[in-house]
Amino acid sequence: MSDIAQTPQPPYYAVIFTSERTEGDRGYGEMAEEMVRLASSQPGFLGVESARESVGITVSYWDSLEAIHQWKQNERHLLAQQMGIAEWYSRYKTRICRVEREYGYQAAP
Amino acid sequence: MSDIAQTPQPPYYAVIFTSERTEGDRGYGEMAEEMVRLASSQPGFLGVESARESVGITVSYWDSLEAIHQWKQNERHLLAQQMGIAEWYSRYKTRICRVEREYGYQAAP
Repeated sequence: MSDIAQTPQPPYYAVIFTSERTEGDRGYGEMAEEMVRLASSQPGFLGVESARESVGITVSYWDSLEAIHQWKQNERHLLAQQMGIAEWYSRYKTRICRVEREYGYQAAP
Repeated sequence: MSDIAQTPQPPYYAVIFTSERTEGDRGYGEMAEEMVRLASSQPGFLGVESARESVGITVSYWDSLEAIHQWKQNERHLLAQQMGIAEWYSRYKTRICRVEREYGYQAAP
């Protein structure tokens, strides 16, 4: 279950991954969980948020562009990216962003 | 129903709004639809993507920080923001980002 990520003071970086899925699971759910675990253990990882309805949106947060680059080149992640194109996604878009500012709200407990 | 936004070549700007809802609708669904329609008619609006499971993630795209500022000050949107805190959200985070780079994939039809 995804939560709101606890990120540090900006600037930091965000990868917005928006996707449309093919029909059926085809091993997607298991790999998606593995990728969240694996990303979370990478250097420079700050957090991840995820939800899916007609599109899926996963936003991962990182402390540098270099950390994003290293994660993209991770061997197991490269396999997941290949399977994403071969099996799981009919369409996706990845956007690399610099987070400039953030603010929020939390109801009193 | 949200789709993957068709955005121009970067740079442009993204507002990542991640939220947790209170129980019950309380007029939320209707206002959320109105805000998407209203945002879409604002100067500098480029697109929006949205999905909700345990958290909701809405990413809106804009051509400038000024367009984001103007949208935040829109009178009807100000009311929605107040009702968000009073009624609809137990917690949220808003992140203002500059999109530096994007790439994507689309399966052959």
